[in-house]
Amino acid sequence: MSNKLWGGRFEKGPDQQAFDLNASISIDARMALQDVKGSIAWANATHQAGWLDDSAHQNLIHGLGLIQAEISNQSFQFKPQDEDIHTAVERRLYETIGADAGKLHIGRSRNDQVVTDFKLWLLDNIPSLIAAIQSLQTAFVHRGDKDLGVIMPGYTHLQPAQPILISHFWLAHFWALQRDVEKFHFYHSQLSQCPLGAAALAGTTVPVDRHAIAQALGFQTITANSLDSVANRDYAADFLYYASLLTIHLSKLAEQIILFSTHEFGFLTLADEFTTGSSLMPQKKNPDVFELTRGKTGETIGALTNILITLKGLPSTYDKDLQGDKLPVFTTFDTLLLTLNVVAKAITTLTIHPKKMLASLSPEMMATDLADYLVLKGIPFREAHELVGKVVLQAQTQHCTIADLTLADYQAISPSYQEDLFEWLSPQKSVERRTVPGGTATQSVQQQLTQAKQLLNHSEK
Amino acid sequence: MSNKLWGGRFEKGPDQQAFDLNASISIDARMALQDVKGSIAWANATHQAGWLDDSAHQNLIHGLGLIQAEISNQSFQFKPQDEDIHTAVERRLYETIGADAGKLHIGRSRNDQVVTDFKLWLLDNIPSLIAAIQSLQTAFVHRGDKDLGVIMPGYTHLQPAQPILISHFWLAHFWALQRDVEKFHFYHSQLSQCPLGAAALAGTTVPVDRHAIAQALGFQTITANSLDSVANRDYAADFLYYASLLTIHLSKLAEQIILFSTHEFGFLTLADEFTTGSSLMPQKKNPDVFELTRGKTGETIGALTNILITLKGLPSTYDKDLQGDKLPVFTTFDTLLLTLNVVAKAITTLTIHPKKMLASLSPEMMATDLADYLVLKGIPFREAHELVGKVVLQAQTQHCTIADLTLADYQAISPSYQEDLFEWLSPQKSVERRTVPGGTATQSVQQQLTQAKQLLNHSEK
Amino acid sequence: MSNKLWGGRFEKGPDQQAFDLNASISIDARMALQDVKGSIAWANATHQAGWLDDSAHQNLIHGLGLIQAEISNQSFQFKPQDEDIHTAVERRLYETIGADAGKLHIGRSRNDQVVTDFKLWLLDNIPSLIAAIQSLQTAFVHRGDKDLGVIMPGYTHLQPAQPILISHFWLAHFWALQRDVEKFHFYHSQLSQCPLGAAALAGTTVPVDRHAIAQALGFQTITANSLDSVANRDYAADFLYYASLLTIHLSKLAEQIILFSTHEFGFLTLADEFTTGSSLMPQKKNPDVFELTRGKTGETIGALTNILITLKGLPSTYDKDLQGDKLPVFTTFDTLLLTLNVVAKAITTLTIHPKKMLASLSPEMMATDLADYLVLKGIPFREAHELVGKVVLQAQTQHCTIADLTLADYQAISPSYQEDLFEWLSPQKSVERRTVPGGTATQSVQQQLTQAKQLLNHSEK
Amino acid sequence: MSNKLWGGRFEKGPDQQAFDLNASISIDARMALQDVKGSIAWANATHQAGWLDDSAHQNLIHGLGLIQAEISNQSFQFKPQDEDIHTAVERRLYETIGADAGKLHIGRSRNDQVVTDFKLWLLDNIPSLIAAIQSLQTAFVHRGDKDLGVIMPGYTHLQPAQPILISHFWLAHFWALQRDVEKFHFYHSQLSQCPLGAAALAGTTVPVDRHAIAQALGFQTITANSLDSVANRDYAADFLYYASLLTIHLSKLAEQIILFSTHEFGFLTLADEFTTGSSLMPQKKNPDVFELTRGKTGETIGALTNILITLKGLPSTYDKDLQGDKLPVFTTFDTLLLTLNVVAKAITTLTIHPKKMLASLSPEMMATDLADYLVLKGIPFREAHELVGKVVLQAQTQHCTIADLTLADYQAISPSYQEDLFEWLSPQKSVERRTVPGGTATQSVQQQLTQAKQLLNHSEK
Repeated sequence: MSNKLWGGRFEKGPDQQAFDLNASISIDARMALQDVKGSIAWANATHQAGWLDDSAHQNLIHGLGLIQAEISNQSFQFKPQDEDIHTAVERRLYETIGADAGKLHIGRSRNDQVVTDFKLWLLDNIPSLIAAIQSLQTAFVHRGDKDLGVIMPGYTHLQPAQPILISHFWLAHFWALQRDVEKFHFYHSQLSQCPLGAAALAGTTVPVDRHAIAQALGFQTITANSLDSVANRDYAADFLYYASLLTIHLSKLAEQIILFSTHEFGFLTLADEFTTGSSLMPQKKNPDVFELTRGKTGETIGALTNILITLKGLPSTYDKDLQGDKLPVFTTFDTLLLTLNVVAKAITTLTIHPKKMLASLSPEMMATDLADYLVLKGIPFREAHELVGKVVLQAQTQHCTIADLTLADYQAISPSYQEDLFEWLSPQKSVERRTVPGGTATQSVQQQLTQAKQLLNHSEK
Repeated sequence: MSNKLWGGRFEKGPDQQAFDLNASISIDARMALQDVKGSIAWANATHQAGWLDDSAHQNLIHGLGLIQAEISNQSFQFKPQDEDIHTAVERRLYETIGADAGKLHIGRSRNDQVVTDFKLWLLDNIPSLIAAIQSLQTAFVHRGDKDLGVIMPGYTHLQPAQPILISHFWLAHFWALQRDVEKFHFYHSQLSQCPLGAAALAGTTVPVDRHAIAQALGFQTITANSLDSVANRDYAADFLYYASLLTIHLSKLAEQIILFSTHEFGFLTLADEFTTGSSLMPQKKNPDVFELTRGKTGETIGALTNILITLKGLPSTYDKDLQGDKLPVFTTFDTLLLTLNVVAKAITTLTIHPKKMLASLSPEMMATDLADYLVLKGIPFREAHELVGKVVLQAQTQHCTIADLTLADYQAISPSYQEDLFEWLSPQKSVERRTVPGGTATQSVQQQLTQAKQLLNHSEK
Repeated sequence: MSNKLWGGRFEKGPDQQAFDLNASISIDARMALQDVKGSIAWANATHQAGWLDDSAHQNLIHGLGLIQAEISNQSFQFKPQDEDIHTAVERRLYETIGADAGKLHIGRSRNDQVVTDFKLWLLDNIPSLIAAIQSLQTAFVHRGDKDLGVIMPGYTHLQPAQPILISHFWLAHFWALQRDVEKFHFYHSQLSQCPLGAAALAGTTVPVDRHAIAQALGFQTITANSLDSVANRDYAADFLYYASLLTIHLSKLAEQIILFSTHEFGFLTLADEFTTGSSLMPQKKNPDVFELTRGKTGETIGALTNILITLKGLPSTYDKDLQGDKLPVFTTFDTLLLTLNVVAKAITTLTIHPKKMLASLSPEMMATDLADYLVLKGIPFREAHELVGKVVLQAQTQHCTIADLTLADYQAISPSYQEDLFEWLSPQKSVERRTVPGGTATQSVQQQLTQAKQLLNHSEK
Repeated sequence: MSNKLWGGRFEKGPDQQAFDLNASISIDARMALQDVKGSIAWANATHQAGWLDDSAHQNLIHGLGLIQAEISNQSFQFKPQDEDIHTAVERRLYETIGADAGKLHIGRSRNDQVVTDFKLWLLDNIPSLIAAIQSLQTAFVHRGDKDLGVIMPGYTHLQPAQPILISHFWLAHFWALQRDVEKFHFYHSQLSQCPLGAAALAGTTVPVDRHAIAQALGFQTITANSLDSVANRDYAADFLYYASLLTIHLSKLAEQIILFSTHEFGFLTLADEFTTGSSLMPQKKNPDVFELTRGKTGETIGALTNILITLKGLPSTYDKDLQGDKLPVFTTFDTLLLTLNVVAKAITTLTIHPKKMLASLSPEMMATDLADYLVLKGIPFREAHELVGKVVLQAQTQHCTIADLTLADYQAISPSYQEDLFEWLSPQKSVERRTVPGGTATQSVQQQLTQAKQLLNHSEK
């Protein structure tokens, strides 16, 4: 037998460099177990349909079982002429059971085989990705519990805005990740359509029971159209988009951790195990983990761009361009898993510095509260805003904070200011005034923590 | 009052070019109705919470109603100093009801206001996008019914592969779009969380009932964390990704229509209304509509790339970079709506040429059927594949098709070939042999049509 | 005459929505002057070639001159049926001079006409873009001169690394922009090939002198191949890439300015004219200009992605997809010009705070100098690095800086430390020790300033 | 000694997963020779500057020479704890020469070291990329010579437009690649600035002669600013952009070859060595090489997107995100080299089918010539265009070509049509009428061939 699954009509074999360009074994070998699993299901289905005799069926199932074991214990040997994983498995099947190996591929094509393998691989691996996201969510919940009560400056435009609980800050990241978890669940449901039986493009001639195959392989249902079955790579793009958005969320976290662990902010210190030093500057302790995490955004969105461009304007059902679908997915999957695990540990082990946070809370951050104060005295908000703005300007002119101004200074701006205004400059009171659901008051944050834990627990079941 | 919603603390107004760079009115004016709707809900909520007196409440509701009417009948006048839609509406409110206008913004920020407006706009408009996708799906179902029975060549690698029904081809595009419809429904559900009450970042101090606001505005629920509420732009990216995948699907359709309407393929003629001519070459009739459709892929993925890059590594809750979120979404929405409508009409009005399709069906396209023939005679598939490959090579050597070879020619390759082999070279029989669900046989395609119509009907209810 | 430049072979006119999808006048109207200029050159060339009679030539030149004037004084009226700028100009030409207008388009196609227009527009406008970049470079040189002597912390990984002159920091941005200027000069040279005479795709039949046309229009030379002439859109992609890299440079500057103007760093204050306030928080003064600048990175790279995807896999010379080439270029051009001008002014007008910078310079930043100290005492660098690392750790353990340790503390770590070590902890001395070309010592920075001014002066000539 | 080039100040070593995330050795090992080369230059420079004693200098040069040999003959052993190539080489240096190894890194940082290595690698490898492009250009020139005289249909909008020489078609691709060659030459010139001596960020304290180092390493000059030296990754982005545009050019070629080798066009047959078959369909012969080539566009533009996103908004000189700069460059380089070589061979070995091309040339493609005919009879072009359009419509109504109409049919449309019109329907004459430089006439194509050969020859010198 030839090394290739095709070749009867060819007078010359491939040019070596063309073979190298064409070969995908270095990448799709990763789907070896899924390939064998799919072949077992196919052998069963063609046997049940009456196109595969009992003896050959027994031999195929036996041989595929042996190969499955070899793959599992990593004793499976690839050979230079193995063009792809399907070829490698079939080649090994010939070595193992002889001529009956040639009966496996009846009514099947690599076109439906490869998409079945790829979908199975994703169905097998998405749960561990969701678990990794949830391990980071858990880290945020733990920090939320542990750090409850600590006040930090909240920022807009990176300028001091209003005081918030740091637990509120941690949970903001929890909720962004929760949307990612929801997306991966939805993804799983769209993915779970079995394409086996689509054959090359037009549907198989073997009267197999496609629903039974789908069930045997763990799919929810079957694909609806054979042409679309072999052409569709939406799920590769979908995976990379959901991954991209996840890295966007991680990049925001990373940016903030890097910032808050600067000398100037000084809100956090990362554990030694998650920092590195400099080859030249002996004093350095750098937040490499978070810089690398931020950098993964580029890698992941680049992979998304790759697959979208590859898919653009393809003319047929299967075009060879589609072979480029797996490497970006596998690479991104590995990157996310490693990154999420490292980040979860780094978040858990960092030390916060409440005093530095408190020191960074200027009285100006209570300016909105001061406007509320005036509003409650009956002044329309827009006017109150203006009257507080003038206070801020006044303090700036006197090179002091608004807490340092005297009541007389205030009353020169508006007689509505009274002695009790100074109470409104307390960060603690500012925080506790925001009790609406989703606000930064302690009780609101505790409600969030409860809700977050329920989501995590529910997911474990 | 100042023209701006801020400014009390500033000694100098903005530089004119800085103002131009900063202004967003030309874009966010599109959300005028949503802005007013949100403000009405806010006035009601602050009134109910006891922070807005009855008289001001009545005035505000009255004034906002007038503005709503002006916007609806397009008599609302924008002014050069209107920095954004929120400023414009509040400015007009002052003109309409005077000082009470200043009471509207209590406990609210443009940060939660703008995300409420944007989400409302999307909730209002996604249904019409879904409807436009479904109008194209409907066009495919109509063609599927109308063209049933016509056989065309199916391709892989753009090389003739196997005969298929053209109705099967049309439906392949239906199912790709169905995944897009599912995505936009999921999108709608993730989007439907009301952020109003998040204020600038820390939550409002006014004890409003956030669930009641959400309900009044048509949201399913409220956002869980105020920081995340004002920072989150996932829904802008999500929209652009789902749109990008949709344009990928359209680009595949476009590529195929362009190809099939070439002189050389000749399978289709587009209606005059959906083609254009040349300023130099009098004979030209060009498929511009589908070329433009294919080109929209770049525009849409470019918009997705834009928003993803913009979001990468942002340090705060609200950073001004986020202002760039709306233009790509609005532009993409308009593009999709127009393109889908034109494409649906162009598909409906094109003429197919069954004879040209039939002429393009070479007997070689039944080679797989011939291999099935040998398999049913007991030859392992892999060997059968090789034996058919040799037949193809033989025909090529004799410069004829495999239908032109004699039985003797066949038997020189394998004695298993018998007289009945020639029946297996019929395209019709080839098509009708593929009866598995999702296959190209007439009965399978009819099942698809039934299923497709059910999905469209279900959606209408 | 028909409104279109084609139509003789068509039985029906275009569908209205198809017309809308197809029309480009809202975008290409911007090239009106270039279109007329190209037509004048073409009329002259066909006249000289003997295919255009004297009388028609005179009429055409006269009519085109009138139209040119109308465009210049903005009295040119577009009409709804004007499909594109070429159609609009020719329609107006008929109105102006009658039937001779029909003689203009001989041997020319919109395919070569539109690329000529687009290239001419770019040749006309690139100089003002280069000038805008240079105005920002000039701002850096001015700051370099003005702020010379001020020391700030230099960062790697956003952690304090070594003291540097702030003038050195400003100039780092100068040199990045200088690479952009070089790129736009190179761009100009690659762009300057005149495609007129390529006609639709195969070359014109009129024996025009293409070199003379090129010269008349200000091109350096002619394109070499007619097919490539009408297909080539490299220059649209090139422009957007060079623009993207420029926005990357601006995003780095923006990130640093935003950071350095935080409350916590406090190194800079932006002028009021280049900041904005909050609608809710009266104390806010936000660096919107630099956030918007950072956000433009997404817009520009998105435009680049757009054009690259549009170009991917196009099958012919001219495909209608190419119509999407101009909008991203025009939009990006406008964005860059406005942004560069605003940023240049904002840099020029900001105030620096040398004392805050000095306060941020911890003695640890001289750790590398301390290692040098040990090296000069004969200790191998790698060992010295380790010995300084231990000093840093010791100080950390004692909750002090390395300047607060006693000589005894130092000598407990290594006897090579002597009394003179404390001199090496001076930031000024650290800066002035780096005298290599490109280093941060004052003399090196002055050399950079000289070199920078020469480049700017040279460019003005 | 520690395994790391830092660590004195750390109490705990890195977490294993954090180490994995951080390590770059699997990627930067590729720059091993450049790293050693740079270290030799540095040892010489610090010795010359008087900071390295003679004995240590001799030892270092000797040790580095041994390591260079080990790398060259692939006997260099990497160890698990080697974090990156710099660490690996220094670790080996200790093993080879002992304590003097610790003197190498004086006044240098991995920040300037890694950019020196990377630039050196690019300077070493760009010439082979240019050569690979030129080998494809050479293939086009050979085909241009060999196929001269063969006429094929030229297309716009993928619709038959005008007849052209196939040699003209091949050369169109030559000129697109020529712009790429020019870009890589320009790239080389911008790249060739030596950053060594910038140290960590502020410039080295060792008074080395930076110009001498640059010269020793083969750079044209030195970088101007130490901060920019270690921050700048423009050259990684530039490389990936120029590569992206190159793949765009290849994608256009690929699309056309795939199209022209379809059953329906039938203009070309690829050599067996550059096609593959199907595992299911025995008759298939697929143009995988060109599909894979077209797919590389996604991979390359994805890599460009990656680096641009990574660079966006970085705050310091060196941030660890920059570590992601090399993998996309190396991968893209390998892909381009392999792809260009395979494509060049595939182009050279394909067979063209002139008869199929001729059969595809309908008389309608000479419609523009017919309009010229009328123009030369004194009819304004726009009117002539209309009169030919009517002829085309008439033929279409009669289900024939315009060559099948009688003179009477023509004269019913316009009396200007005379017997001699039929000469104008010859494809050969149409081609030969386009004699302008860059046109498709044989003489013009021969001029192109001459010019192309001069460019290739000039480049070889």
